[in-house]
Amino acid sequence: MELFYACECDGAVCRLDAEESGHCVRVLRHRAGDEIHVIDGAGTMLRCRIVEDSPKGVEAEILETFPGWGGHPYRLTVACCPTKNNDRFEWFVEKAVEIGVDVIVPVIGERSERRVYKPERARRIALAAAKQSLKARIPEVTDPVGVRAFIEQDPAALKLMAYCFEGEQERRSIKDVLQGYEGTDISILIGPEGDFSPEEARLAIAHGYIPVHLGTSRLRTETAAVTAAEAAYFRYM
Amino acid sequence: MELFYACECDGAVCRLDAEESGHCVRVLRHRAGDEIHVIDGAGTMLRCRIVEDSPKGVEAEILETFPGWGGHPYRLTVACCPTKNNDRFEWFVEKAVEIGVDVIVPVIGERSERRVYKPERARRIALAAAKQSLKARIPEVTDPVGVRAFIEQDPAALKLMAYCFEGEQERRSIKDVLQGYEGTDISILIGPEGDFSPEEARLAIAHGYIPVHLGTSRLRTETAAVTAAEAAYFRYM
Repeated sequence: MELFYACECDGAVCRLDAEESGHCVRVLRHRAGDEIHVIDGAGTMLRCRIVEDSPKGVEAEILETFPGWGGHPYRLTVACCPTKNNDRFEWFVEKAVEIGVDVIVPVIGERSERRVYKPERARRIALAAAKQSLKARIPEVTDPVGVRAFIEQDPAALKLMAYCFEGEQERRSIKDVLQGYEGTDISILIGPEGDFSPEEARLAIAHGYIPVHLGTSRLRTETAAVTAAEAAYFRYM
Repeated sequence: MELFYACECDGAVCRLDAEESGHCVRVLRHRAGDEIHVIDGAGTMLRCRIVEDSPKGVEAEILETFPGWGGHPYRLTVACCPTKNNDRFEWFVEKAVEIGVDVIVPVIGERSERRVYKPERARRIALAAAKQSLKARIPEVTDPVGVRAFIEQDPAALKLMAYCFEGEQERRSIKDVLQGYEGTDISILIGPEGDFSPEEARLAIAHGYIPVHLGTSRLRTETAAVTAAEAAYFRYM
């Protein structure tokens, strides 16, 4: 099933941007009158008929709408420190979108080796992964933000922090904490290769974060982030 | 914590191969008398003292042994069809080792686009990932085998097949099936991009495989394989 992303939708008509239009008309050779499937990026899939087959801007008449198409029964924010090797973070973005995530926040911690992060590529990966995994909602990849700033404004109902410091702080497994949670609005904070600083951890706990562990395996940052997304996926499976 | 892999161990002494020895002596500049941590690849971590610091072949006296070091409380075989893009399969190998797997079997299905697979690179990735994630046991990456041949000789107590055919066959979620399983010996079969053939699926079911789904998300082959490993990881967490 081929999906296109509509940059613009009103009630009756949607439009594809130049890149999607070129793919639709030049590569897949769709013409006016063809039926195509379009996502609005906000959760709705649209069955459409092409009325304007310009490779610069396809316009299509909306025949049927499928709200909540390819959605999941929870809202998950994963705030993760970008890895030194950018490919590893982008791999996490692709996999988290396939599994099911709503917001990805690149956070910069005191001990982050990568202090600068440009989200444009990750946003393109999120769009491609949403289309490939048949989801009408494209998860948001926010601009990078400091760990402290994220902690101070995180609105999630259940806030988890995967915190590696041994001993110092009692931790439950993410599985147990999610099992005991009746709601569906979750955020999880994943630290950099060098972990959070004690100050960051104290600030998070002061803001209601629950320190959790991800099991006995020692996981890379991007593997921890994907494992957190899998924990939510299995919790609501 | 830096780990070395011993290609050879007797009760009292272990030896590193040329690559590990060069890394130990030339890169990390260890000398005779230094204490190092070594894995035997079979599940035991060894605290050792170097007695011979040759970059061609380090020899170390075993001071203390830690059996079952970095192990997990289940035995998991993931048999997965190699992906067209080899990086995706190798990514699965790295992540499955981090999370916890015992045997990885590259299987070639009737509909596999990749008919030939060379496991040497994946074996090096498994070794590196085991050392990086602090596991004394290096999961085995077998030679490639046909799906039918694998099905006919798979000795696992619980045999699962992630089978995409909709409707045709009733499927439970992998989470439910694992929850209801009291044992610890599991294999899971993950098909190629084009899924298994109906004949392969029938053969598997005739051999006692339970068809399972991995939830509502449509996952790429390598993501399905990692998700299966995560399902076992969370089951025994």
